[in-house]
Amino acid sequence: MKLHWSPRSPYVRKTMIAAHVLGVADRIERVRSVAVMTRPNPAIMADNPLNKIPTLVLEDGTVLVDSRVICEYLDALSSGPHIFPAPGPARWQALSWAARADGLLDLLILWRNEREKPSETRTAAWIDAFREKAGATLDRFEQELAAIESQPFGIAHIGLGCALGYLDFRFADLGWREGRPQLARWYRGFEEHPAAIATEIIDD
Amino acid sequence: MKLHWSPRSPYVRKTMIAAHVLGVADRIERVRSVAVMTRPNPAIMADNPLNKIPTLVLEDGTVLVDSRVICEYLDALSSGPHIFPAPGPARWQALSWAARADGLLDLLILWRNEREKPSETRTAAWIDAFREKAGATLDRFEQELAAIESQPFGIAHIGLGCALGYLDFRFADLGWREGRPQLARWYRGFEEHPAAIATEIIDD
Repeated sequence: MKLHWSPRSPYVRKTMIAAHVLGVADRIERVRSVAVMTRPNPAIMADNPLNKIPTLVLEDGTVLVDSRVICEYLDALSSGPHIFPAPGPARWQALSWAARADGLLDLLILWRNEREKPSETRTAAWIDAFREKAGATLDRFEQELAAIESQPFGIAHIGLGCALGYLDFRFADLGWREGRPQLARWYRGFEEHPAAIATEIIDD
Repeated sequence: MKLHWSPRSPYVRKTMIAAHVLGVADRIERVRSVAVMTRPNPAIMADNPLNKIPTLVLEDGTVLVDSRVICEYLDALSSGPHIFPAPGPARWQALSWAARADGLLDLLILWRNEREKPSETRTAAWIDAFREKAGATLDRFEQELAAIESQPFGIAHIGLGCALGYLDFRFADLGWREGRPQLARWYRGFEEHPAAIATEIIDD
């Protein structure tokens, strides 16, 4: 199967961490695909007209988007460990944490798009709102970290780790660790996970 | 359970259509919650620090986000029909169609935010890219409609119907039906579904 991939995308990283944890990474052919908001890439558009990565193309031609769907598909391929709990309270909680981490990433991407505009077209009210929501979301993760840590490593941890890694990658100035000692400690452990090391996000 | 709700949100509408189809709508207490991008609402932020709706608060206090997660939770409550296929090819395909419909909605919301800015801060290149990607995504749904229609009514149909309904609501000028006769025909049927009628999106 073919994955539209980039070493810069935190959403792509989620799927590759999942693949490593699930033992299916060697079944994925990674194709470097550059997805820029304002320049639709024909190679991606042919498979995913939203021009987003990751996009996974199966052997039979079926196209799977987005990162959450791809992670769930990879989970089903695994004959060993799993990263999605079975239906029940643990699943709804894990999916909800993972969705909140994805929502934080979505917000950070929009924030970056806005702050990279020429100053005369930048909207300060947007940036203020992004800052407030990102801070509140990180605070909530700090408060709920004990509950998150009590669960087996899975989709919620992968999503949270990728969001925090993206903060270090593009928002180092934000100092997200300040006032969030539990999250900072947890992330040190995440960074040492072999699947996190194998998929480190970089500007290549 | 309490749902942060608005009659204007296509994501909220997805969850309410799901609730009607699954026969659990009367278990949901809807709370009118206004979510504006630049004015975080304390009532929403207390439950979901991303300030997004729908947000569902269960009796035990567990908070579920986002619309996809809430739909899957409601599906599990149903003792009758289901809107998510069991794990297997039909599920991955349905989830992927649903994710593409959500991606279209995400893009339309960003497009609307951008085009409502004062003209001097609007970025034409963003709007051009939104137009190209939305058109290509609608074309792909047109091409794949026979396959979508061959599946039992579920999460993919709900997502697609809510995206098309939002186009009529906020992008009537786009004329999305033009050149897409299959999608236009299918949407006429969707509009007549009792769950679609019960949840019609409006400016109240």
